[in-house]
Amino acid sequence: MSKITSIISGLSLKEKADLVSGKDFWFTAQVSGLDRMMVSDGPSGLRKQADASNALGLNKSVVAVNFPSSSLTAASFDRALLQELGRNLGQAAKAERVRILLGPGINLKRSPLAGRNFEYFSEDPYLTGELASSYVQGVQESGVGVSLKRFAANNREDQRFTASSNIDQRSLHELYLSAFEKAVKMARPATIMCSYNAINGTLNSQNQRLLTQILREEWGFKGLVMSDWGAVSDHVAALKAGLDLEMPGKGNESTSEIIEAVNKGQLDEKVLERAASRVIQMVEKWQPENKTVISYDLEKQHRFARQLVGESIVLLKNEQQLLPLKSNQSLAVIGQLAEKPRYQGSGSAHVNAFNTTTPLKVVQDILPKTAYQAGYQIDSDQIDQQAEQAAVDLAKQADQVVVFSGFPSSYESEGFDKKTISLPDNQNHLIERLAAVNKKIIVVLENGSALEMPWVGQVEAIVETYLAGEAVGEATWDILFGRVNPSGKLAESFPIKLADNPTYLTFNADRKNENYHEGLFVGYRYYDKKKQEVLFPFGHGLSYTTFEYRKLELLKSDHEVTVSFEIKNTGSVAGKETAQIYLSNQTSEIEKPLKELKGFAKVSLNPGQTKQVEIVLDKRSFSWYNPETDKWQVDNGSYQIQLAASSRDIRLTKNLLIDWSENKVQALSPDSYLSDILKEQAFKAPLKESGLDKLLEQLAGDENNQAILTNMPLRALMMMGVSNHQIQQFIKLANQS
Amino acid sequence: MSKITSIISGLSLKEKADLVSGKDFWFTAQVSGLDRMMVSDGPSGLRKQADASNALGLNKSVVAVNFPSSSLTAASFDRALLQELGRNLGQAAKAERVRILLGPGINLKRSPLAGRNFEYFSEDPYLTGELASSYVQGVQESGVGVSLKRFAANNREDQRFTASSNIDQRSLHELYLSAFEKAVKMARPATIMCSYNAINGTLNSQNQRLLTQILREEWGFKGLVMSDWGAVSDHVAALKAGLDLEMPGKGNESTSEIIEAVNKGQLDEKVLERAASRVIQMVEKWQPENKTVISYDLEKQHRFARQLVGESIVLLKNEQQLLPLKSNQSLAVIGQLAEKPRYQGSGSAHVNAFNTTTPLKVVQDILPKTAYQAGYQIDSDQIDQQAEQAAVDLAKQADQVVVFSGFPSSYESEGFDKKTISLPDNQNHLIERLAAVNKKIIVVLENGSALEMPWVGQVEAIVETYLAGEAVGEATWDILFGRVNPSGKLAESFPIKLADNPTYLTFNADRKNENYHEGLFVGYRYYDKKKQEVLFPFGHGLSYTTFEYRKLELLKSDHEVTVSFEIKNTGSVAGKETAQIYLSNQTSEIEKPLKELKGFAKVSLNPGQTKQVEIVLDKRSFSWYNPETDKWQVDNGSYQIQLAASSRDIRLTKNLLIDWSENKVQALSPDSYLSDILKEQAFKAPLKESGLDKLLEQLAGDENNQAILTNMPLRALMMMGVSNHQIQQFIKLANQS
Repeated sequence: MSKITSIISGLSLKEKADLVSGKDFWFTAQVSGLDRMMVSDGPSGLRKQADASNALGLNKSVVAVNFPSSSLTAASFDRALLQELGRNLGQAAKAERVRILLGPGINLKRSPLAGRNFEYFSEDPYLTGELASSYVQGVQESGVGVSLKRFAANNREDQRFTASSNIDQRSLHELYLSAFEKAVKMARPATIMCSYNAINGTLNSQNQRLLTQILREEWGFKGLVMSDWGAVSDHVAALKAGLDLEMPGKGNESTSEIIEAVNKGQLDEKVLERAASRVIQMVEKWQPENKTVISYDLEKQHRFARQLVGESIVLLKNEQQLLPLKSNQSLAVIGQLAEKPRYQGSGSAHVNAFNTTTPLKVVQDILPKTAYQAGYQIDSDQIDQQAEQAAVDLAKQADQVVVFSGFPSSYESEGFDKKTISLPDNQNHLIERLAAVNKKIIVVLENGSALEMPWVGQVEAIVETYLAGEAVGEATWDILFGRVNPSGKLAESFPIKLADNPTYLTFNADRKNENYHEGLFVGYRYYDKKKQEVLFPFGHGLSYTTFEYRKLELLKSDHEVTVSFEIKNTGSVAGKETAQIYLSNQTSEIEKPLKELKGFAKVSLNPGQTKQVEIVLDKRSFSWYNPETDKWQVDNGSYQIQLAASSRDIRLTKNLLIDWSENKVQALSPDSYLSDILKEQAFKAPLKESGLDKLLEQLAGDENNQAILTNMPLRALMMMGVSNHQIQQFIKLANQS
Repeated sequence: MSKITSIISGLSLKEKADLVSGKDFWFTAQVSGLDRMMVSDGPSGLRKQADASNALGLNKSVVAVNFPSSSLTAASFDRALLQELGRNLGQAAKAERVRILLGPGINLKRSPLAGRNFEYFSEDPYLTGELASSYVQGVQESGVGVSLKRFAANNREDQRFTASSNIDQRSLHELYLSAFEKAVKMARPATIMCSYNAINGTLNSQNQRLLTQILREEWGFKGLVMSDWGAVSDHVAALKAGLDLEMPGKGNESTSEIIEAVNKGQLDEKVLERAASRVIQMVEKWQPENKTVISYDLEKQHRFARQLVGESIVLLKNEQQLLPLKSNQSLAVIGQLAEKPRYQGSGSAHVNAFNTTTPLKVVQDILPKTAYQAGYQIDSDQIDQQAEQAAVDLAKQADQVVVFSGFPSSYESEGFDKKTISLPDNQNHLIERLAAVNKKIIVVLENGSALEMPWVGQVEAIVETYLAGEAVGEATWDILFGRVNPSGKLAESFPIKLADNPTYLTFNADRKNENYHEGLFVGYRYYDKKKQEVLFPFGHGLSYTTFEYRKLELLKSDHEVTVSFEIKNTGSVAGKETAQIYLSNQTSEIEKPLKELKGFAKVSLNPGQTKQVEIVLDKRSFSWYNPETDKWQVDNGSYQIQLAASSRDIRLTKNLLIDWSENKVQALSPDSYLSDILKEQAFKAPLKESGLDKLLEQLAGDENNQAILTNMPLRALMMMGVSNHQIQQFIKLANQS
């Protein structure tokens, strides 16, 4: 008898029922011989509630370093950095005796309106899966478990407790489950948090296919499944489906509903024990022996935060090499966000930051005479005539103008979706006025996710800092002054206008259903194939130096393809470049994007330096999910490897033939099309033997008939006098051949 | 015992089995006491096969007047003309002893690539349903039955025998079934032809829901269901599902498979008798007593064809009032399509035309000195340097240049889909060269459906004649010379480029499945909401005069809304205007287009004349199909009536409140959202009584919490310490209030 089985056998029904719900908002239940265990929010810094008695659970938390939001860290395209971020978070959690960190959230960015985009990594599942795995590994290396969230297809906030995400099986597997699958398999998170929403009509907390069949049976997940806070509607149904821990608990009600269900025979006690065992197993595994308080170095974490931001900020535009700023030219700083930066999102990701450095303070420490004007009030959309005029007047006198702009916090948060991706009118108006009086405008953006830039053609430089965490001030000027060479690349597409987004027609349109009409065509998968211009494409990001891609080579083995190439720093300063590998499937006769990201590598290069890079693509890279067989499938045929600096900057390509699958001729049936039959060499003899060949020749009189004929299945020949017997005879011969 | 029951009771099993399959390609079976009956193709003119023994059934037919394709007649927006067309077709069929005319085809134009678009009316189900009903009424008034086709969602040709049209229930009902429903209810067609494809996995010929539940039980169809030619895969399954007549028959095989199934107990003889009865009923009803040959006036029909084309041709562009042509200026005609016009589609719609007048012949009869150059070879994409240069040279010398351009017949036909909507390169190249040497270029288009016009900004006038039938020559010059004032309006949107179309990403991508990802957003429903520029919008068409819209008034009764307005001819020549009524639902919380066509009227006006128009919108106009209840639903609230000259030329609008539905407050459940509860006056007291009001006040501390809170359902309050009992108590009180 294992230790856990032995513990379970010693528990009363009430104790088992106690275990499968949280004791309260942040703790697991405390039953005989087992300690309660604390969990806390924390994707961008620990959010350990100081006063855990507050009901909504979104109140003041202990001080912690506030790291950048995932929307920014994803732009680093740097697995090692994400792992280091995880280690930092784990260290903080451990020090605060938090055993499970609730995060990261790894849902896809499907619509730029989704309220929680700032918490998520990317519109691309491969990038998300890679970075999430590194992050989880980092946290868990520190001895703190992760609750990977929010499982799954939780892509809108409005009516999030009940709305059904209606998704076809291919898109569900290829896009929305794929990053979870990778992280589960590669990083083995302690727990998975199931999300509020339903998928195709079944609430995730009660979704047996999702929580048991896919997660455990197909992916081999061994940890615990907890609910998002309040996601359980029917606790008994949830337990049966594979949920282990309801969070938070509802107190006595949680316990008594379980006891009642067992007593009434509505819930098999074995199912309850399965869930309770997993709670015990989690506590046993992640509850450390040593309960003494350990301290950690917050200053050091702050320094890491600064580094992380510097590696992630994306230089979107830089005409005339306006950046880095020239020290011999005067500088004006404009925009209230310089003084009151927006550096983190609201809701469960909100951190009580350790040491926030505002951009204004930092620049004035460096250059005390830097002039500043707020230009607008961040909490308002209204133009403040006086403030705007003062800013314009200042801009007239300055050589270089840095404008801080972004969304107010009321625009994006957990709990509700955005209505717009426009900046407040007063900010757009200000930027246009500034651009009219000064040709050297640098816009620095603080925002949770993609926005429209009606003034994009009027300014010379644009720097995307997203929500950069507490080091926002130092890191931003590191980039602007060129102390750090920017190397971030966008992990999401920026559309020109909201209406360009594939979900625009229907996102949040229906209170009960969110229909994933766009299927596989999310983000660049949509814009590329649709030949739609974008503001800035996925994978885009500039540097203060330049890179050359060379010598793309492919080496195919019987189960993978090794892509090798060289990158050279052809500029005059050191820098980092993220090379991207996209795969274009030119073979499968299914719906498919033009290309998909299947590999990337970030390379650090001194001026003039060249490095060789190798990226391995496994079978899965070439696969699609076949809903008819419920399996990933590789089709033999031609594929193109595209080596790129962004999704719209393909540098080198090479084609290859994949022949990994058993190359069998499809068995014929009466539904087989003549076009397929006529092009297959193997069927020539059977056609002749069955006498069908002459008939087909005869029918295919003129060109039009020929075209129509090849679009007919065998069974349709019956209307032309071919007997069923003759068709069956041919099918038999063909299938034997 | 009815006559039919009596006939059936006298038939042997074999005779019954004989009856439910065609005798051959064009005839029903001949059994004791019952004559065989002939059916023939004919949406744009009778296609009665002269030699019915040919297997493929697409050979030479008897001479008949070739009317324009439905893509053109739909542009007339004229119910009376369509009815007259029906009468003409019926007359021809009757004279040729054809009893059932196979047509019209009324499928929606979903993708401009669909091979059979030329046979169909529109991208809009309301317009299609109205015109189809008039057409069917016209045919059947003549004593000839109609087979309304192709039922349903048969929107691609490639793999058409097996591909599944995967459509959500709302789009299926609101778009793809809606025109069929109207025509069945308004015009009572003798038969319905079920199409080849499957819907959501079930072949239409075996689709009980489609052929029985929807068609007969919901719509009250009393006629016969026949298969499209070769659409039956499993005859027994088809009979069970509600198919009555397999076409064509497979000879003895058809009969013996039925007999065997009855004998083995796999098919209830009652089911067979049901189908056989419907065949007898059809023959009895539509087989005329008088079998003498009657003649009809083909010349007169030709004149009607000319009139019909004139009322349908669409003047897309007419800068500087270039048209009508000026008789005092020299004229050049260019383009081989003037000499060899393409005026009809291929496949079952192809007619052995009575008297085709080519545009070149007609203009040279009027103005014998008109110069002509072919400019290109219609059967080739290659530039013919010599022909092109000769055309350019001619254009240099002429005052006015009319260029005939269009798709070769190999581009569009039954049986396969298009690959492009570009004209052949040689034609695009020629037009651009002509435009470079002459400012007065008039392009006349001959094509089955929408095309790209890269030269749209370089030519002054564009005339869309679609496939105009045998009167193409006379009717085109009627318009160009101004003998007829153009009044056609586009029944489909012309996108700027193919990629702009909503189905572009996935049309024909998957051999087995055609996924209707775009849902409700077909045609203008997509382009409008997506804020996508189009080449020419739905409903667009110019005139040689101008119209003013005035005095829009709405009168609401308890079941309909009467829209009245005035139109005035403000120009100097007589003309016709099609006023369009679009409805914008501003109420229902579901996916929905910005507006939908719900009414139209074509008005003939002398210069200076004003007419008052009344259009009635019934309840159905305001309804949407609710898949949860399987019912059409009207929601109370605000709607906007838009009076328009095209879908992008709204002239007058007026809002109204609909209050036709029972105004009941939604019963509350634990899933009810606080946002809905807090805005409902009726719940104030129960909130207070249950003590929930104070708690909510307390929770909604700051603005962010408030926004999050209102996005929570009652059940989520449990995690904040509200007991289930308290919530249930409130729900009880609220639902009693």
